[in-house]
Amino acid sequence: MQAFLEKMVQKHRPQAGEGKVADYIPELSRQNSAALGVSVYTSNGETFSAGDCSVQYSLQSISKVITLIIALMDWGPEKVFERVGMEPTGNPFNAISDLELYSPKKPLNPMINSGALVVSSMIEGLSVEERLERVLKLVQDMSGNPDIGVDEAVYHSERATGYRNRSMAYFLKEFGVIEDVEATLELYFRQCAISVTCNDLSRMGFCLSRHGENAAGQQVIPRSLARLVKTFMVTCGMYNASGAFAIQVGIPAKSGVSGGIMASVPNRMGIGVYGPALDEKGNSYAGVRLLQDLSREWNLSIF
Amino acid sequence: MQAFLEKMVQKHRPQAGEGKVADYIPELSRQNSAALGVSVYTSNGETFSAGDCSVQYSLQSISKVITLIIALMDWGPEKVFERVGMEPTGNPFNAISDLELYSPKKPLNPMINSGALVVSSMIEGLSVEERLERVLKLVQDMSGNPDIGVDEAVYHSERATGYRNRSMAYFLKEFGVIEDVEATLELYFRQCAISVTCNDLSRMGFCLSRHGENAAGQQVIPRSLARLVKTFMVTCGMYNASGAFAIQVGIPAKSGVSGGIMASVPNRMGIGVYGPALDEKGNSYAGVRLLQDLSREWNLSIF
Amino acid sequence: MQAFLEKMVQKHRPQAGEGKVADYIPELSRQNSAALGVSVYTSNGETFSAGDCSVQYSLQSISKVITLIIALMDWGPEKVFERVGMEPTGNPFNAISDLELYSPKKPLNPMINSGALVVSSMIEGLSVEERLERVLKLVQDMSGNPDIGVDEAVYHSERATGYRNRSMAYFLKEFGVIEDVEATLELYFRQCAISVTCNDLSRMGFCLSRHGENAAGQQVIPRSLARLVKTFMVTCGMYNASGAFAIQVGIPAKSGVSGGIMASVPNRMGIGVYGPALDEKGNSYAGVRLLQDLSREWNLSIF
Amino acid sequence: MQAFLEKMVQKHRPQAGEGKVADYIPELSRQNSAALGVSVYTSNGETFSAGDCSVQYSLQSISKVITLIIALMDWGPEKVFERVGMEPTGNPFNAISDLELYSPKKPLNPMINSGALVVSSMIEGLSVEERLERVLKLVQDMSGNPDIGVDEAVYHSERATGYRNRSMAYFLKEFGVIEDVEATLELYFRQCAISVTCNDLSRMGFCLSRHGENAAGQQVIPRSLARLVKTFMVTCGMYNASGAFAIQVGIPAKSGVSGGIMASVPNRMGIGVYGPALDEKGNSYAGVRLLQDLSREWNLSIF
Repeated sequence: MQAFLEKMVQKHRPQAGEGKVADYIPELSRQNSAALGVSVYTSNGETFSAGDCSVQYSLQSISKVITLIIALMDWGPEKVFERVGMEPTGNPFNAISDLELYSPKKPLNPMINSGALVVSSMIEGLSVEERLERVLKLVQDMSGNPDIGVDEAVYHSERATGYRNRSMAYFLKEFGVIEDVEATLELYFRQCAISVTCNDLSRMGFCLSRHGENAAGQQVIPRSLARLVKTFMVTCGMYNASGAFAIQVGIPAKSGVSGGIMASVPNRMGIGVYGPALDEKGNSYAGVRLLQDLSREWNLSIF
Repeated sequence: MQAFLEKMVQKHRPQAGEGKVADYIPELSRQNSAALGVSVYTSNGETFSAGDCSVQYSLQSISKVITLIIALMDWGPEKVFERVGMEPTGNPFNAISDLELYSPKKPLNPMINSGALVVSSMIEGLSVEERLERVLKLVQDMSGNPDIGVDEAVYHSERATGYRNRSMAYFLKEFGVIEDVEATLELYFRQCAISVTCNDLSRMGFCLSRHGENAAGQQVIPRSLARLVKTFMVTCGMYNASGAFAIQVGIPAKSGVSGGIMASVPNRMGIGVYGPALDEKGNSYAGVRLLQDLSREWNLSIF
Repeated sequence: MQAFLEKMVQKHRPQAGEGKVADYIPELSRQNSAALGVSVYTSNGETFSAGDCSVQYSLQSISKVITLIIALMDWGPEKVFERVGMEPTGNPFNAISDLELYSPKKPLNPMINSGALVVSSMIEGLSVEERLERVLKLVQDMSGNPDIGVDEAVYHSERATGYRNRSMAYFLKEFGVIEDVEATLELYFRQCAISVTCNDLSRMGFCLSRHGENAAGQQVIPRSLARLVKTFMVTCGMYNASGAFAIQVGIPAKSGVSGGIMASVPNRMGIGVYGPALDEKGNSYAGVRLLQDLSREWNLSIF
Repeated sequence: MQAFLEKMVQKHRPQAGEGKVADYIPELSRQNSAALGVSVYTSNGETFSAGDCSVQYSLQSISKVITLIIALMDWGPEKVFERVGMEPTGNPFNAISDLELYSPKKPLNPMINSGALVVSSMIEGLSVEERLERVLKLVQDMSGNPDIGVDEAVYHSERATGYRNRSMAYFLKEFGVIEDVEATLELYFRQCAISVTCNDLSRMGFCLSRHGENAAGQQVIPRSLARLVKTFMVTCGMYNASGAFAIQVGIPAKSGVSGGIMASVPNRMGIGVYGPALDEKGNSYAGVRLLQDLSREWNLSIF
């Protein structure tokens, strides 16, 4: 397993340059476009990793899975899905016209930015700090790493340039979907800046693959919710390339524009990937190809 | 199993009336809105059925799965997915603005009408009749029922009112995506009018659940293609309610506006449903609810 | 003339109730939906008025004409039309999807909200106050009324609820079209809250009808710019009812959601209207009908 | 006047090459991209012309004005505007998404293709031929040239490639807006292929400038309808560059993708232009610039 991972990193690293590091958040643009790392945590409790696995990177959209879990724990599926839909969309993750033309009061799903903003606004807590603590706590519980925190430089960079998210949040406010725009954005920018490694992500993916039980055997997420978010990871986890990913890879996964991917193979393993050079849909260029090879080699597709 | 199916039909039949029989195709509007039937074919080779299982109804959009398989056999995935995408869409199945605004040359996926028209145009054959024969042959092979044919009344009704599909086909012609519009429409209207029962559909779903091997043990679809189309059934099989269906039911399935649903539980069973009163997305109102109950009771979700 | 105006007010006032006072800005919703007033200032220097001509109301979108004139004086047409287009749109004045789908970097015209925000951001001045002073000064010069000021209650109401405009401004910021969003919004909300009467508006319309020369004979707007903004009033002055208004009335005019209309009949007269109950496009319900009668009776159409 | 026209043709002909001859209709693509001609017919009954004034070219979209007049004569404005709107649009003339997203049952205005198809479908007559005769008759009456006919090569070329118009017509049929699609398209393709010279167009523009009275003094169009269509020419006559044209030129005008422009200066003159190399909006590149110079030199703007 170890050998195969190393071979795969060697195979795909040269092509990483075909992608492009996200540049709309200045702090992200500093990432090394040639970086590639992968970590696997199996149900035997073994870890395998290859490539750039010590690099810290931010969760970005991967945090949408975490906040969705918390909102579902706080409110239950019924209340949450009154305010955000369950349908994938063929349009880009940051499209605002979908909202206006089809569903001004209800973003299509919790994995696009507008839907994730609604979800973040539902997380309970007396302050932004308290809410963030709850998000951090779940990330720490899932990964078993109590040291995970927010990358302040990324957070500030994100906050200083997040005009489109701010635009979207005020649009939702217009329709009464979000109450406190600025608090919601504060939480959103911070959750996106939570800093992890491939090892952390592989253990988080593992926790979902074990129906919410982490590597230490603690049930940190209710079973039914673990299933629910894995379903979203299949239908909407890879932006508007989710359909292709389901066909070519077939593993529940969620990507972020930092180049991270958290993948979860039911009952078998969690996988954490890092490859900051992105394809045009916003997913790690080399990371997607590497996962495709792993899926074929180890027959990981759920389909 | 039999008893549970009967109980479920009794439970859901009274609510069938909440839905609405499709009325844009005159021949479909004659269906009995209170009808509800379900048939299950298991890997033990047993059949269970309850309700209106002797009613004949047309495949409608379920035929999109069949033609996709044939086009994939004719051309291979690479060629097919150069001309039609793999992404689900949150918009209605007959939307033309998606095409114009985002992808004039490549419909988002083969399960929406525009994509299915492209797929039908790719099926090889010297004439419309020959192409139709190939579609019918596969339906017969999957179901093991050599008597399956086209309902001429439905076909003529479809053809006489299919203005929107004709509009879409000419739009695609404008961009050089479809060559012979009228031949493509002929095939499309006929494939939609192929007439089946719940029993037929359950065996077709079974064939997919067994990776392309039908009840008689013949491999009528290559394994890799059976997986591929089941993935599409998960991400786009239930129109723009596919995301909700994945979460609430979790079974690869394809619906049609006749009220039919073909569902395929990997390695376990095929399910055929009939319930012509539709919800607002175009899926069988009672049928979806019945499948949700079966999935919960028998733990059928793939997630 | 006087008699005809009074007759017209009597004729149209009963139908004012068919419209609906704007309710998305709380302060506007307090207006009397039965109010109707009209004032005419002719090239002989005569004033005729009828109905509710002493009521103060806010300029709202009518201020878009004023800021456009100032931006044109500051930068010249070439620079201004690099950043905002000249084309009417059939979509609502506050649509954000037009921006995203067709022209993210250049709003279609200066009479829709997104375009007006860009125009306001171009007005020179060291502070919001200084910029506002310049806008007020031009309104005072055009109308000959030095007492015109901002209605603070309307301004605060506008500011407290203007989420959609804030959303739009941040969307434009994302594309680098607007620099200082909050300062632009401050100016925008205040310019909308400038408070006038029908008499004021009739003199402002008169000034445009005399190619920028006010009633006192001062050239307060360059001739070429007076022509230019009157052209915009014809093609885009009445929201997405401008085309119908051109055909049915044929007078350069600009409306606001307060129910005001400033109309300008070349070389002949300025007309100020007040009728706060609006039709579905956002124009004064009774006001448009009254202007249609005046246009027919006095043959005012420019076409 | 003659000298000035010649000077203008010399000035603008060299830049004609900046535009591009329409190539989506094969027969149009054969036109000489360097051609430029202009003809003026004044209220004194004088004709001035310069450049390529003997070339025959097809009316294309200019025919939309003619059919609108006939439909208005047949049905009256009220009935016509129940089925087609009066609002300009910032979107391209052949956009289908406007229809789907905003107004499936009522195209925005009669100058975009969808609206013109509705108008053509309203022209009374027992056959396509009879309807075409009525259109031809009006063109002959307006121009005083009884020899005007249809260019059969252009008609066949148009018919063989008009997939987008066919798509649009079937889309309208779906909503019950058009009854007989094929007959409507037949008329539409033929009216577009009516063949004229600059002299013809200048006399047609003159007829409108004289409120419907042709050069021979016959009232061939009711006064009120002449005004009405001139208003449309201002707000929607130059595709989605009409707003800019109103500001920069200010003359009621209608263009076609053959490179023709029919302009009508109220009470003063009609102008016919030919310059087949088009700008990106579909208007004659050199023709628009030439008209702008004429408008400035002779002060022709109606604003």
